[in-house]
Amino acid sequence: MPTAQPIRFQPATSTALLRQLLEQRTPGHSLEAPFYLDPSVFQADMALIFERHWIFVAVAPQVAEPGDYITVDVGHNSILIVRDDDMGIQAFHNVCRHRGSKLCEAHQGSLGNIVCPYHQWTYDLEGRLIHADHMGETFLKEQHQLRRVHLRNVEGLLFICLADEPPADFDEVAARMKPYLAPHRLNEAKVAAQVDIIERGNWKLTMENNRECYHCVGNHPELTISLYEHGFGYQPGPQNEEGLARFEQIVEDSHAKWEAMGLPSARLEELDSRVSGFRTQRLPLDRAGQSQTMDTQVACTKLLADFGDAALGGLSFWTQPNSWHHFMSDHVVSFSVIPISAERTLVRTTWCVHKDAVEGVDYTVENLTKVWNATNDQDRRLVELTQAGVASPAYRPGPYSPFTEGLVEAFCVWYVDRLRAGVASLG
Amino acid sequence: MPTAQPIRFQPATSTALLRQLLEQRTPGHSLEAPFYLDPSVFQADMALIFERHWIFVAVAPQVAEPGDYITVDVGHNSILIVRDDDMGIQAFHNVCRHRGSKLCEAHQGSLGNIVCPYHQWTYDLEGRLIHADHMGETFLKEQHQLRRVHLRNVEGLLFICLADEPPADFDEVAARMKPYLAPHRLNEAKVAAQVDIIERGNWKLTMENNRECYHCVGNHPELTISLYEHGFGYQPGPQNEEGLARFEQIVEDSHAKWEAMGLPSARLEELDSRVSGFRTQRLPLDRAGQSQTMDTQVACTKLLADFGDAALGGLSFWTQPNSWHHFMSDHVVSFSVIPISAERTLVRTTWCVHKDAVEGVDYTVENLTKVWNATNDQDRRLVELTQAGVASPAYRPGPYSPFTEGLVEAFCVWYVDRLRAGVASLG
Amino acid sequence: MPTAQPIRFQPATSTALLRQLLEQRTPGHSLEAPFYLDPSVFQADMALIFERHWIFVAVAPQVAEPGDYITVDVGHNSILIVRDDDMGIQAFHNVCRHRGSKLCEAHQGSLGNIVCPYHQWTYDLEGRLIHADHMGETFLKEQHQLRRVHLRNVEGLLFICLADEPPADFDEVAARMKPYLAPHRLNEAKVAAQVDIIERGNWKLTMENNRECYHCVGNHPELTISLYEHGFGYQPGPQNEEGLARFEQIVEDSHAKWEAMGLPSARLEELDSRVSGFRTQRLPLDRAGQSQTMDTQVACTKLLADFGDAALGGLSFWTQPNSWHHFMSDHVVSFSVIPISAERTLVRTTWCVHKDAVEGVDYTVENLTKVWNATNDQDRRLVELTQAGVASPAYRPGPYSPFTEGLVEAFCVWYVDRLRAGVASLG
Ligand code: FES
Ligand code: FES
Ligand code: FES
Ligand SMILES: [Fe+3]
Ligand SMILES: [Fe+3]
Ligand SMILES: [Fe+3]
Repeated sequence: MPTAQPIRFQPATSTALLRQLLEQRTPGHSLEAPFYLDPSVFQADMALIFERHWIFVAVAPQVAEPGDYITVDVGHNSILIVRDDDMGIQAFHNVCRHRGSKLCEAHQGSLGNIVCPYHQWTYDLEGRLIHADHMGETFLKEQHQLRRVHLRNVEGLLFICLADEPPADFDEVAARMKPYLAPHRLNEAKVAAQVDIIERGNWKLTMENNRECYHCVGNHPELTISLYEHGFGYQPGPQNEEGLARFEQIVEDSHAKWEAMGLPSARLEELDSRVSGFRTQRLPLDRAGQSQTMDTQVACTKLLADFGDAALGGLSFWTQPNSWHHFMSDHVVSFSVIPISAERTLVRTTWCVHKDAVEGVDYTVENLTKVWNATNDQDRRLVELTQAGVASPAYRPGPYSPFTEGLVEAFCVWYVDRLRAGVASLG
Repeated sequence: MPTAQPIRFQPATSTALLRQLLEQRTPGHSLEAPFYLDPSVFQADMALIFERHWIFVAVAPQVAEPGDYITVDVGHNSILIVRDDDMGIQAFHNVCRHRGSKLCEAHQGSLGNIVCPYHQWTYDLEGRLIHADHMGETFLKEQHQLRRVHLRNVEGLLFICLADEPPADFDEVAARMKPYLAPHRLNEAKVAAQVDIIERGNWKLTMENNRECYHCVGNHPELTISLYEHGFGYQPGPQNEEGLARFEQIVEDSHAKWEAMGLPSARLEELDSRVSGFRTQRLPLDRAGQSQTMDTQVACTKLLADFGDAALGGLSFWTQPNSWHHFMSDHVVSFSVIPISAERTLVRTTWCVHKDAVEGVDYTVENLTKVWNATNDQDRRLVELTQAGVASPAYRPGPYSPFTEGLVEAFCVWYVDRLRAGVASLG
Repeated sequence: MPTAQPIRFQPATSTALLRQLLEQRTPGHSLEAPFYLDPSVFQADMALIFERHWIFVAVAPQVAEPGDYITVDVGHNSILIVRDDDMGIQAFHNVCRHRGSKLCEAHQGSLGNIVCPYHQWTYDLEGRLIHADHMGETFLKEQHQLRRVHLRNVEGLLFICLADEPPADFDEVAARMKPYLAPHRLNEAKVAAQVDIIERGNWKLTMENNRECYHCVGNHPELTISLYEHGFGYQPGPQNEEGLARFEQIVEDSHAKWEAMGLPSARLEELDSRVSGFRTQRLPLDRAGQSQTMDTQVACTKLLADFGDAALGGLSFWTQPNSWHHFMSDHVVSFSVIPISAERTLVRTTWCVHKDAVEGVDYTVENLTKVWNATNDQDRRLVELTQAGVASPAYRPGPYSPFTEGLVEAFCVWYVDRLRAGVASLG
């Protein structure tokens, strides 16, 4: 049998640079340039962050029926996620145990068994090898099952972990989030739209951009119709004390109402204090206060679950290292960030509505997706400008605003901590 | 004078990884991932395999007349192959001895002398510098001849070797193959079609794909009209004993007939037992048994040579590291595999027919090329799926079928042996 | 505060190879292949040549009015060059001091203040940070000014230096060139045309190509209408003694006339004898002798300055490492060479005429640019053929002609010297 440990990530060369960079990090400042540029840091990000933590990759409605499957790529990993005959959701490496052919080429589809296109080795939906020609009588099928990937369905949000032993604290995160998310019944929703964009920037610039609204007023005319910037990590300071106080009052009033309706709303903030870092809060929306749309009214008149009130604000849920979500009364919008290379990142946005809602009657894709398609494109430009800037030898880490960029700092602290832990584990 | 040894392939960094990988190879299993992915392994493949062994690059009819030339690229080497005035075939590095300009830009053409486009240094068809302006009276033209590349014309198949001292056993291979190949008179044929495809996969996946027919039944509807899968390294096993026995009987009967016609047919199998590894056998074709076409009848009604019988099966000839050929009564189809990068490979297919055959009368290019164009495209997909799969960190070398993948193993054994020898020679 | 020295160019790995290559250089021969191919040599070229010497990047008429700006890229540096309100010209790194966003996206434009697109930090035209929201009361704006780039306007030619301490001898070069250049009044001209081409070759091949006219007769039918090849570093030798003597006589006669008109014409030749290497000479043109055009007549009937005579030949000015210029009576044509990668180079050509000249009346862009557009394309092909050739493992440095390639050798001597000095400074 071949060795269990393939020859891959070579710590020797990379960790010297990494250790130096990690030691050199200045709190409260953007990261040193190699974090955004260096291919060996990128390799470390993939090996130590994305292959060791819980990564948000899809929503359960993407695999609604038995045999439905999707494939998602995380780095060079291709993951096959499939609904089995018992309505469970399984995740496997999409790689044949014979000579390694990719099994499923398409991004989504439906199948009975999993048949390799090369020599037709056949696996069932639980990953068991059930057929292989010409392998002889001593060949042991049970030693050639598909390699399994850990998966958790958190109220309709699918997280995978590529590590042999995933971070254990995720179950606690799932348990704490359950009462917040469950009322929106994402598991029973349907996907109304999904859009992929590729940003020519490092994934951490995409995440940092997501973790502040300092840039919103100057860049997001569509989003700021419904969004109060203050919900995104703002601290009282000379310039925003008054606005923030007003906003806090609105939050307090809204929360009282929502909690009374059985919708947990209070902020949970553990972005940098645990391995599976996350943050949540139900936030009021401006004007009609219903949804992140151009008129702040619901985009889908058939509400999720059996909500009687459309003005539920937005339950936001942020996770480290790669996702954020807004659960509203009428739809859920989810964002998955997947690094492609040191300087290229996939942002996948998925909009879900009630599974019985009818396109053209209850909602239009155009109206449902307008705000975030515009916003994503604006953020893409900002990420790309920053990627271009940090690539300059003249770039030096600059100071985060202590009043508006606290969650960016939380992201960086989490990232640097996790990378330090990862590097330490390499010995 | 500049040093003879330029600064190139740096053994220090690469050989540590290489040695480890070569020691780690598990017999009977596909190779570890870095063999298909790692740029430094690719560099070693080029330096130690492709620049040290005999490589099939073209057929003699491509340079039919004096002054006819072609250029072929092997890695960063551009090779100029030219028919000289004495009807010999010469091969040179296509690089000017002045400041290094590429001499001939086109893939093929015809010329009198070889004139550098930059400052017009002029070489004759034997590579001698015969003119150079402004170099003064002490300049020695004879020290600036074109650098020669070893070339052998094996009955119309052109092999080159980029090493200073090519493997000596190739003359023996040529001698043993001569009686098999000569009757088809490829030297006197003409090129009817040539098609290049680029596969997004490592060249070894292309070669491994060629060395088994385990995948044929599930993937090659056109090819399997004429082809018995059993001729491609099958061993008797639980699932194919009966079919194989039937096939062996057909082979025996056919060989008796063909040998009586003066066509050597018996298998020669030295794929992993010599430096210039090869294999040959005349194999029966199914149904009409004449040619690898959609109806198994000849594609060209004007037969090669003066064959009286069209049903000569196919004389197959496989060489390490990069070619295979099928010589039939009516045409010869040759395949040359040239690595482009660790993850990209050129497959060049050349079809030759009798030089007096007339397109539209004796044959059509459409019919002549249909089976292998389809088959190449199917194999390209399989290679690309496997490249995608082995790129996954989840890939582990899997077991070859002992009954159908013996020649794949022979390829890997040869490759690993030759690479070990190459690495050892670096000291 | 973050460290002043970011983690970048890693001398350890690269300098071993570099030192070996620099020691190995054979005088009078083209460079070893890695100088044209190796990414680590390219990094050294950028860090030690392009980021430490005076680089020609633009002409003053590109930023004619206060607020006019251009951006130019040198490696990963984006440089913002702007005309300030006092008619000075400033150069800054085009990188925000907050989180590093690129400030100006366009190649040219006009602005009042410099406003970052991300969070609207605002800088004045002298680079001072004058506005930054949400940074609090202890934040020091004066510590976050734009990082300045050294700039010299040499009679309308803009040179920048990215080093903290630029080579001091440049002021002397500027002083010596002033009487040669000033009469053409480039500062008061306007840009009539600018064309960028990308050559798939190393920048040094572009420069070497510029530094000899050995290739002109065989490649430049348009340019050689007006150009005597002999002015470009020719030495008397067996094949050109006579032609050169005739040319020297023409030069002598012309210089007498031009010097009498107040136009310094004598050759200054310091290409390899100083850090800021340069060469200049006013050279006669053939036939009508007025301009580098298809008919050798002026391309613009409104002459630069108030020249009374159109037949002023061409004042050529070459600088190390990256420019050359021809100042004629009617127009100035300037060339800026900027490396993009080891195998890709930008050549930017700029034609300037009198600022009151009218397109269609006094000149046409077609006629003005025809000779050099054709010539650039011919040179691009030669550079690309040479890049392809030196990439061959068969390439060996070849001998420069001692009679026609003296300035190529001067370029190589300068380059190798400067790189040696750079490597030495790394310790
Ligand atoms: S690679 Fe999957 S069956 Fe062979
Ligand atoms: S490079 Fe061939 S003649 Fe100069
Ligand atoms: S990056 Fe320029 S203002 Fe934030
Ligand atoms: Fe945004
Ligand atoms: Fe095949
Ligand atoms: Fe030229």
